[in-house]
Amino acid sequence: MKEYSDLKFKERILMGPGPSNVNPRVLLSMSYPMIGHLDPDFLKITIEVQELLRWLFQTKNMFTIPISGTGSSGMETVFANCFERGEKVIIGVNGVFGKRMCEVCEKYGIIPVKIEEEWGKPIKTEDILNTFKKNRDSSGIALVHGETSTGVLQPLEDTGKICKENNLIFVVDTVTSLGGVPVKVDEWNIDACYSGTQKCISCPPGLSPVTFSEKAVKKIKNRKSPIESWYLDMTMVEKYWSSERIYHHTAPISMIFALREALRIIFEEGLERRFARHKKNSNALIEGLKKMKIEPFVDEDFRLASLNSVKIPDGIDDVKVRKELLNTYNIEIGSGLGDLKGKIWRIGLMGESSSEKNVVYFLGALEEILLKEGFLNSAGQGTAKALQFYSSFS
Amino acid sequence: MKEYSDLKFKERILMGPGPSNVNPRVLLSMSYPMIGHLDPDFLKITIEVQELLRWLFQTKNMFTIPISGTGSSGMETVFANCFERGEKVIIGVNGVFGKRMCEVCEKYGIIPVKIEEEWGKPIKTEDILNTFKKNRDSSGIALVHGETSTGVLQPLEDTGKICKENNLIFVVDTVTSLGGVPVKVDEWNIDACYSGTQKCISCPPGLSPVTFSEKAVKKIKNRKSPIESWYLDMTMVEKYWSSERIYHHTAPISMIFALREALRIIFEEGLERRFARHKKNSNALIEGLKKMKIEPFVDEDFRLASLNSVKIPDGIDDVKVRKELLNTYNIEIGSGLGDLKGKIWRIGLMGESSSEKNVVYFLGALEEILLKEGFLNSAGQGTAKALQFYSSFS
Repeated sequence: MKEYSDLKFKERILMGPGPSNVNPRVLLSMSYPMIGHLDPDFLKITIEVQELLRWLFQTKNMFTIPISGTGSSGMETVFANCFERGEKVIIGVNGVFGKRMCEVCEKYGIIPVKIEEEWGKPIKTEDILNTFKKNRDSSGIALVHGETSTGVLQPLEDTGKICKENNLIFVVDTVTSLGGVPVKVDEWNIDACYSGTQKCISCPPGLSPVTFSEKAVKKIKNRKSPIESWYLDMTMVEKYWSSERIYHHTAPISMIFALREALRIIFEEGLERRFARHKKNSNALIEGLKKMKIEPFVDEDFRLASLNSVKIPDGIDDVKVRKELLNTYNIEIGSGLGDLKGKIWRIGLMGESSSEKNVVYFLGALEEILLKEGFLNSAGQGTAKALQFYSSFS
Repeated sequence: MKEYSDLKFKERILMGPGPSNVNPRVLLSMSYPMIGHLDPDFLKITIEVQELLRWLFQTKNMFTIPISGTGSSGMETVFANCFERGEKVIIGVNGVFGKRMCEVCEKYGIIPVKIEEEWGKPIKTEDILNTFKKNRDSSGIALVHGETSTGVLQPLEDTGKICKENNLIFVVDTVTSLGGVPVKVDEWNIDACYSGTQKCISCPPGLSPVTFSEKAVKKIKNRKSPIESWYLDMTMVEKYWSSERIYHHTAPISMIFALREALRIIFEEGLERRFARHKKNSNALIEGLKKMKIEPFVDEDFRLASLNSVKIPDGIDDVKVRKELLNTYNIEIGSGLGDLKGKIWRIGLMGESSSEKNVVYFLGALEEILLKEGFLNSAGQGTAKALQFYSSFS
C-alpha cells in the first residue's frame, strides 16, 4: 500500500509573478481553529476584512469583499455582473491579462472592442479616446493596471475621467498592483476593481478582493437579464456580506483569517511606506541588473515596481538560468509568456518578497550564473551597485 | 486611528451542517511556507492529492481534481461543463441543494426537469424512471446524495444503472456525504460528482473535489458550443492538472496543502473504519435523542449519518435553544432551512466532529437546556443511553 509522507518541500525565495512569500503571522493565522461561517465571532472578522480592503483600495465603496476564488474569478465576477450579453466593452490589450479579459467577455456574450498595443508598452489615452469616439455605444472601458505578463504599469487617471464624463463603467485589474503601488479607486473614478491575494498583499492564493462603485452597483441592479453565473452572482453573494447575512455559499474561513492578517500587516506598515519600499527595491534591482548589462524591458515611466521585467541577454539560455536559480539558490523568477517566452525574465518584488535581502541575494546568484556562462567577466558588481543604492537612502 | 487586534474568537464544537472541526495537523499544514504553483515540489503534491481523491471517490477517473472554489463552485462546474444551452437534465428536488441545481442550470440555459419530493424523503426510483420515460430527450439525471438541508441519504445505484443503459450523464452532489458515508463513483456509474472540503473531509472550506468519468469527459470534449464560464472551464483547468502543466489560474496553494493532509488522515483511518465511525456516532446520537423525546426527521433507511435532522419538540423555541447551545456550551448546530425553519435541527457529525465525546457532550448540554425549559423532568437519560450504546461496542 502506498505511503504518503509528511508534507515536505524546499523553501523558496518567491521572486516570480506570484505567489509571493507570506509572512509567518499570516501562515499561522490559518492554523487557528475552524469556526462557522455564520458564527457571530466570524461575522465580526468579515466586517474588519471589508474595512481593511476599503482602506487598501482607497475607496468608500460599501460593496467591497473578497470573492471565494483566485484573481481570475474576480475578473470573471466583474465582467459577468457589470455587463450583459451584447454590450460592448473597450479593452486595452497589451499582455496576457488584457487578452484574458476579452476571453472572459466572449464567454458571456459581451463584445470586447480591443485596443491592441505592443507588449511592454502602456495603452495610450489618445487610443482609448479614439476608440471610444468610434464606439460610443460602449458600456465600459477595462484596463490592466499592472500587466503581470510584461511588467507595465498602466496610468489610469485620464481614462477614469473619460468614464466619468461619459457614464461608462471603468473596470481595472489590480491583481499585481494592489498593495504594492498606489491604487486609488475613488480618486481615479474606478467602478469595478478586482485583485488577487497572492501578489503584493502576500497572502496565499485563493481569494480575489473586489470593489464596486455605486454606479456599478446601480448598473448591476438594473440589469435586464439575469447574471449568467450562480457562484459569482454578486446580487446573491452581497446578501451574505451585508447585514442580511443570508447564506449563499460557505465562506473560505481560513483564507479569510489569512487575508485579515495580511491586511493588518499592510495597515501596520502604512500605504506610503509600503509603496516607497516597493519602489526602492525595484530601483535597486534595476540599478544592479544594468550594471550586469541586463536592461529593463519597460520604459522607466511605466515600470511596475512589483514585477520587474528585463531582457534576457543574447546567447543566454532562459530555462538553464532559471533552473539554476531554483535548484542552486532556491530562487523562483518568472519566464516570459507567449511571444516573450525566452526573451524576458519577470522578477517579482511583491509584498514580503520585496526586500533588500532578496534583491542583493538574487543579484549575487545571477552574477555567479552569468559568470559561469561567460556572459560576465567578474562577479560582485551588480550586488555592489545595489548595496550602494541602498546606502544612499540611510 | 482604528486598531485591529490579534485574531481572537471562541473555539466551537462544530456540529452544524458544516464546516466541521479540523484536525490540528490539517490546520498546521497551512502554516507551511508558500511555494510556487509551478514549482516541481508543488506539482508532486498535486499528483498525490489527485491520487488520494480518486481513492476517496472510489474511482479510476483520471480527471479528478479539486476546483478552486467552495462546493457550490463544484456544482456549477459540473453543470456548466457537462451540458449545453437547451439540454434537459432530470433533477431530484427534495431540499435546498436539489433546488440549487435547478437554479444553476437556469443560469446556463440548461432545462431542469424537476422531480419534486417532500423534504425529508428520498427521490423514488419509479419517479425517476417515469420522468425519464416522459423526457427521453434528456441528457442527464442529477441527484443529491446527502441533502444537507434535510439529512436524507439518497440511494444511487438504480439511477446509475438507468443512466448507464440510456447513455445519460449521472450527476451526483456528494458535498455532505464524501468521506462520511460510502461514495462509489465507478461502481454506481456516476459520471460527474462534486463535493466540498469542509464537511466529512474536515478540511477548511474553499475547495471542491470533482471527478468526471470518461463518458463525461467525452461529452465535454464533443460540445457544440463553448463552455460559458472561464474560471470553471474544465478543458482549460485540466491542462494545469494534467502532465501539460499549462497555467490557467494560480492554484490555492495552502488550501491544497490542507486538503492533502486531510485526505492523508482519512487514508490512515481507512474508508471502512471511517464510515463505521460515522454510523456509530449517528446511531448513538439518535438513541440518546429518542430517550429525550426528540424524534428523527428522516426514516431510518434514508438517514444521513453525517447530518442528523431531528424534529424540534412542540413548544420549544428553536432560536433560544441554539443560542444557549452556542453561548453556554460553544456548540454550533444547524437550523432548518426554508419551510423547515423552526421545525428541525440539523446536527452534523462530520469527519473530526463525529466523535463519542461530541455526541455525549451535546446530549448533556441539550438535556440541561430542555430541563430548564420544562420539556424534560430529569437530565442524564439521553447521555446515559448513548454511553450504554457505545459500551455495547467494546
